[in-house]
Order: sequence, then structure tokens, then C-alpha cells
Amino acid sequence: MQKIIDYLQANQSRFIEELCAYVRFPSVSAQPQHRPDLQACAEWLVSHCQALGLDASLRPTAGNPIVVAKTPRKAGVKRPHYVVYGHYDVQPPEPFDLWKSPPFEPRIVGTSLFGRGACDNKGQNLAHLKAVEAYLKTGTELPCDLTFVIEGEEEVGSKNLATFLKANRAELACDAVVISDTGMPDKKHPALTYALRGIAAFELIAHGPSRDLHSGIFGGSVDNPAMALSQLLAKLRDKKGRVTIPGFYDDVAPLSAFERKELARLPGNDKAYQKFLGVPALFGESGYTSTEQRTARPTLEINGLTSGYQGEGSKTIIPAWARAKLTLRLVANQDPKKIVKAATKYFKELCPPSIRLEVKAGHGAEPYIVSPTSPEAKAALRALKLAWDREPVMMREGGSIPIVNDFKKFLRADTLLLGLALPDDNAHSPNEKFDLECFAKGQLMGAHLWQELTK
Amino acid sequence: MQKIIDYLQANQSRFIEELCAYVRFPSVSAQPQHRPDLQACAEWLVSHCQALGLDASLRPTAGNPIVVAKTPRKAGVKRPHYVVYGHYDVQPPEPFDLWKSPPFEPRIVGTSLFGRGACDNKGQNLAHLKAVEAYLKTGTELPCDLTFVIEGEEEVGSKNLATFLKANRAELACDAVVISDTGMPDKKHPALTYALRGIAAFELIAHGPSRDLHSGIFGGSVDNPAMALSQLLAKLRDKKGRVTIPGFYDDVAPLSAFERKELARLPGNDKAYQKFLGVPALFGESGYTSTEQRTARPTLEINGLTSGYQGEGSKTIIPAWARAKLTLRLVANQDPKKIVKAATKYFKELCPPSIRLEVKAGHGAEPYIVSPTSPEAKAALRALKLAWDREPVMMREGGSIPIVNDFKKFLRADTLLLGLALPDDNAHSPNEKFDLECFAKGQLMGAHLWQELTK
Repeated sequence: MQKIIDYLQANQSRFIEELCAYVRFPSVSAQPQHRPDLQACAEWLVSHCQALGLDASLRPTAGNPIVVAKTPRKAGVKRPHYVVYGHYDVQPPEPFDLWKSPPFEPRIVGTSLFGRGACDNKGQNLAHLKAVEAYLKTGTELPCDLTFVIEGEEEVGSKNLATFLKANRAELACDAVVISDTGMPDKKHPALTYALRGIAAFELIAHGPSRDLHSGIFGGSVDNPAMALSQLLAKLRDKKGRVTIPGFYDDVAPLSAFERKELARLPGNDKAYQKFLGVPALFGESGYTSTEQRTARPTLEINGLTSGYQGEGSKTIIPAWARAKLTLRLVANQDPKKIVKAATKYFKELCPPSIRLEVKAGHGAEPYIVSPTSPEAKAALRALKLAWDREPVMMREGGSIPIVNDFKKFLRADTLLLGLALPDDNAHSPNEKFDLECFAKGQLMGAHLWQELTK
Repeated sequence: MQKIIDYLQANQSRFIEELCAYVRFPSVSAQPQHRPDLQACAEWLVSHCQALGLDASLRPTAGNPIVVAKTPRKAGVKRPHYVVYGHYDVQPPEPFDLWKSPPFEPRIVGTSLFGRGACDNKGQNLAHLKAVEAYLKTGTELPCDLTFVIEGEEEVGSKNLATFLKANRAELACDAVVISDTGMPDKKHPALTYALRGIAAFELIAHGPSRDLHSGIFGGSVDNPAMALSQLLAKLRDKKGRVTIPGFYDDVAPLSAFERKELARLPGNDKAYQKFLGVPALFGESGYTSTEQRTARPTLEINGLTSGYQGEGSKTIIPAWARAKLTLRLVANQDPKKIVKAATKYFKELCPPSIRLEVKAGHGAEPYIVSPTSPEAKAALRALKLAWDREPVMMREGGSIPIVNDFKKFLRADTLLLGLALPDDNAHSPNEKFDLECFAKGQLMGAHLWQELTK
């Protein structure tokens, strides 16, 4: 292992140059004019992987190609197989005027490398490639087979990944998937993310009179859809911050004492959090810490309200309709389908006879969880500790990463989320950066991970 | 009186031609390009009044001129004095494509005269002028002095009328004001409107986090302003349809048994009303009929809701803020100032500590009521009955007509609202019309009114 550590250290400045070359491609998947840049970036990546000694190729999809790169297989030996997922596409750089330097001209200030995609996700997937390079270039035998799957459509919803996974099930069958595309609280707390929340989206439209009515002439004798909707929405959350949909909490896996203890280790405090949010006071489900509320507990949020007159001054109408957009965040082991059904029924029950309620159920995603005490999780935690020389933390993520469910569904594999992004890395924002210490420690973590996973 | 009746009958076709001439002026006060048309219309009106034998002149204001026309005064005799108010400006005709014939080219179909302003208000104020013409042209002595005040800014808020009334208090001092600019249920029910609702407008803005937040990352640990606002709004109306602002009903003048009996005489039924509104069921304050709810009882209406994402699909955010526009409709003897104060206090009390509530109080208008059993009201009812040969009804109007409060304030005079508009006259809508029978009966009512008022 020392050979690998030495190799990584000795080649760090070259790796940074390579990361700069990678970041220079304006591989913006959301913008059609960048299609050739995505192709060029993918081709560069294939060449780079081949130069490291990987068996790499471009795999066409209905959209941008996927780069697949495999470590040399040992003939006749069946070894553990892991898939490392990443993406070479990036978010749009706009608004340009908020960038302190051009987004696709990497600039290093202190330990920060600025550039669109530096952190999300080029720096993070390159760290894993560099770890494997160290094995291959020092002649150190890898204890397992690895397949890199680096796609070009993550920022536009990974719409061709599921088809690709399904079509290549046998080839990609693996013991686990490793993704470095999430975050860590700070450089003192390397992190394993072991759970994600799921989601269920709704649109509720309360229909009243057939057109906006004069509130003077008719007001008082006909229900107001905006009031009826407000009264319906008001009932969805009780005073203790709990969602009132019948059966909503029935399948929620309770937090274990071990998890609560681990989540409490995460840095930060409520006072700083409140200030960061800019709110007069925090509010959430009683009996849980802020961290638990936003990562380990389900919630219901109103994302938007629309009704009647929204311009300057006043317009004296009873609006014909009122609409709310809602999302439920779900946790293990809630089933989005079951929840959508229960919620739809409940919404309709709450609607008074004076209003016609339209309920549209939108996209959904299942919550995700892997045991934080499984052998794989423990191996990942050891790798994090070896790389950072810090006690790692175990995190839950409040958002959803739908591809993790695709890996589960098509490859029947759990995912280890070992993110290297810092909270101030500005992913999706102007002045995105990647910390070069995270880059180096990420390589080291990658190098240790394959050893620890196969112990 | 028979001479007058005969004169009106004999000249009806000329009167209709004169109404057509009046309607041809596109006197749209909301549109600056029609300023010359307003001037021309006002000048036409002055000439017309002069031709009838009235002492008429154009009185300049900061906006469009006011036409003032007086019946010949009898030297040395102090007689009762009534002001007849009307307006020569009209609503914009748009959208043009919904008109079956050009809005400023009057067209007669059956007993309907189509054209913008035919009903609101040219036909109605011309009817009063024609009644006076009959007196003057038949040499019949009027039992009182009359002053016509016909303004050109009613459709844009009568913003120079108060100043005019204040400046000409002595000249306009009168025993009562007569306005024909409201409606009647149908041609079988000539109507006196004896009460109007007042209004108080509010804007409530619930401020939460300093910017929209990712609902996955933060949802559950911070209050959602759209939810907080919904919960606040929901509390403003109870299950019985009553407004919950403390003290809201304290000053409400209860409906007398006489009024309830009279309001019950109005034509129409709830089934037809529900169908007309297009709602699955009616809803209003329990214990009151629909008519009472929308005319004689105060109410709270949400006019608009705005928060977060309103586009297609979903955006997973906790909105930074949520806004509601509200109007309260007030009835005698509620005081808008007192209500605004009580409501503002209550809104703030209902706001949870996790949200900062901004309350903006907008325009207000006092409710208006005259006794339906006063000598003036009784005289008006007799004039209606004589003209229509039908038992008149006594109505309350749910909307507000702020100028009525100005007459009260500056001239210390009550107003008799003797509207000639039918529910299907399309005031403010395409294909506005005025019924020629209402025009003729209105002239007759005007002729009788001065006799009855001075009996």
C-alpha cells in the first residue's frame, strides 16, 4: 500500500493538471449547443482511461454516450466486482456575470480549484480513476474487478441510464456500487451517506365557480376556492409538525439509538443553522433534532401556491380556482405508491362539498437506505478513516438520488455514497470549486476502499 | 301628470335616437387616446341640456370635465333641491372580437339597444333628463329644483369628484341624491337599493427563509411559509362560514324582520343560483339566505394567493415567502378603521414564531345604508310602482359604491339608488345593452319621483 500512497503523492501536480484539462470541456448536458463538447469530453475520458491501462470504450445511448472502463480481468479467477459511477456532464454555468473567472478556465486559489464541474462531478470521479492508476502503474494487484460507468446525462435526469443498466445487467452485475457525488460536512468529517429520502409530488386544484366572481356581488354566498384550499392544506400538518395523512408513519423505519448517536456527531448547531436559513425560529417535527428532521423523517412541503389576482394592488374577486404544488419526502420503508394512494384519498376526504378537488400525482422516487453497520459500510468507514486520519461520520441525505434506486433495481446492488463535496463548493451555482485536499484524500480513500471491501 | 306621460310616449322614438347619438361617443375614460371623445361627449351633453331648457355648463376638474345642468330656479322661492348623479364615461370595449356589432355603433334588436355605455350609464342618466324635458316642454311646473351632476371619471374611480363636491358644497347642498346606476332583478321587479357593503383590503405576506430552499435538503427542519400562511388563513373562517376576527360582528346592524321579509320577495332560487355560479354546492354563513349572505352580511374573501413555484411540473423548494390578498366586505354599522385594526392585530396573533408576517392594509370604504322606510324611500317606491305598475322590491347591494359616501360626507345627503340595469345587460362586458322598456319606464319613474318626493 505504501507504494500506492507514494505514487499518488508524487503525481499530485500532474493529477491537478489532468483535472484542469477535464474541467476545460464545457460539457453542459442541458444545452444542445454543447453536444459536441460532451462527445469530446467523453472521448478524452476514454483515451485517458486507456492510457491508465483500463479497457475503456464509449457506449452509445439515445442521448450522450456512457464511458465504460474496466480494470484488467484476471483470467479464470472470479473476484469481487464493484461498479464506480460518475458523470462527465455538468450544470449550465449561467449566470456568467456572477463568476469571478470564466467557468471553463480552471483557476487555483489556495487549495481550491474553481471551474464548472470541478466538484460536481469531474474531480470526484477522477479521484477514483487516479486511485486505480496508482494500482496499475505501480504493478500492485487490485483485490477485485472494477468497472467505471461515467455517464453524460446526470444533470438532465439520467434519462438513458436505466435502459443502459437493464441492457447490460450481466456485464455490470456487481457486489456494490460506489459513488462519490454527495457531500461531507467539512474537512474534519469524512462521511458515508447511508440513506436518501424518497419523494412523491402532487398538484391539488380546488375548483369553485365557473369563472372569477365579483367579490362584492357574490361574496358570502359561495365558497372561495382559495379559502377552501387553505383550509385543506392547513389540516395536512399538525401543531407538532407531523403529517396527518392516515397511515403516513406506519412504515417509517424508526431511527435506532446507534443512528441517533451517530447523527448527533455531525458538526453544526441550531443557532448557526437558523441564522444560515434566515428564519426567526426553527420549526419541525417535535421529538427530533434538526438533522433528524431533514434527513431521517418524512415531511410534507408546499412548493407553490397560485390563485386569483397576483398583481399590484387589489382585485375584488372570488377566484374560480386555487392550486397548490406539494411534495412529500419519504424515508425507509415508506412506499411511494402506497403513500400516493393514501394521500389522494385523504385530500379528497378533506374537500368540502362546495368545491371540486382535482388531485394530480406527479413523479415519485423510493427512499433509499443501506445498513450503516453492514460489512460494506464498515469497510467504507475504515477506508475513509485511513485516508483522512479522522473519525468518519455517518450521514443521511434529505434529498433524493433516483439512480441509486436504478442500481438496486437493475443490478440488485447497494450503493456506497462517499461524497467529497464541501458545503461551500457551490455545486450548481456560480464559482463552483473543488478542494484539492478532498481530491487527494479522495484518491487515497479510493485506494484503500478496494482493500477494505475485500478483506 | 297626464301631459307628461303623453309627451314621453309621443317622443320615445326621438329619445332612442338621442340615446344612440350619446352612445356613439367612445368616451372611454381608462384610455388616454379617448380624451377628445370624452370632451366631445361632455360638450354634446351640455348642448343637449341647454336645448331642453336647462342651465348647463362644463365644469373643469383635474381630469375630465363634469357636466352640471340645473332646472330653471323660481326666483325668491326656496324649494326642495335634489341632485341627480350620472356619468358619461364608459368602460373600455375590449375584447372587440366578442362583440356581435361594433361597440360604438348602436344596434337595436327587439327591445334591446346594444352599445358600450348604453346601460352603464348613458341610458340611465338620459332617462332622468328626458323626464325633466317632459316637464319643461309641456310647461308643467316642477315641484322642486334639480341639479344634474354627470361626471366623466366614474369608471376610473371618480378621483376628482370628491374635490368637486367639497369645492361646491353650497351650490350642491340638497335634500337627497338620486342615482340610477345599479340594477333591478328583472322587469317584473322595479327596485330601490337601500344599502351597500363597505370594504377593507389587505395583503398578508408570510416571510420564511431568506431565499427559496431545497425541500429535500432542508424540508422538515424549517417552517414552510406557504403552509404557515394556509394555516393562518384557514383560521379566519369557521365551519359556519363566520369570520373569526374578534369583535368582527359587534357593530353589525341586524336585519329586521321587515327587511328579511322584503329580501325574501326578490325573485330567484338557490338551485338556479348554484347553476349560474357553476359550483357543486353553495356555501355561506349559516342562518342566512343566499341573498342575505351576499348583500346584508359581512364576509372575508381571499382574492389571490402567490407563493413559490407556479410553472409546469414541480420544483422541489420551500418558498421564501407566501402572499395572500384579502378583502373584507362590511355592512352597516361596521367601521372600516376599527375592523382594519382588529384584523391586523388578529393576523399577527395567529402568526407562528417561525414566520415573520407583513400586513399591508389597502383601500377601505364605509358601508352605506338608508332606511327603507324613510319618507324619501317610500316616495321612491311609490314612483317605481306608478311607473312600472308593479310592486317594487327593496334590495341591498353586495358591492361598494364609494361616491355614495362622498355625497354623505360633503353634501350631508342620503342617496336613493334607483337602478334600471337588468342582470343580463352586460355592463363592463362585451355586448352591453340597455332595455328600451327600462329606458321608457325610467323616464316615467323620474317624472313621478319629483312629485312623490315633494308630496
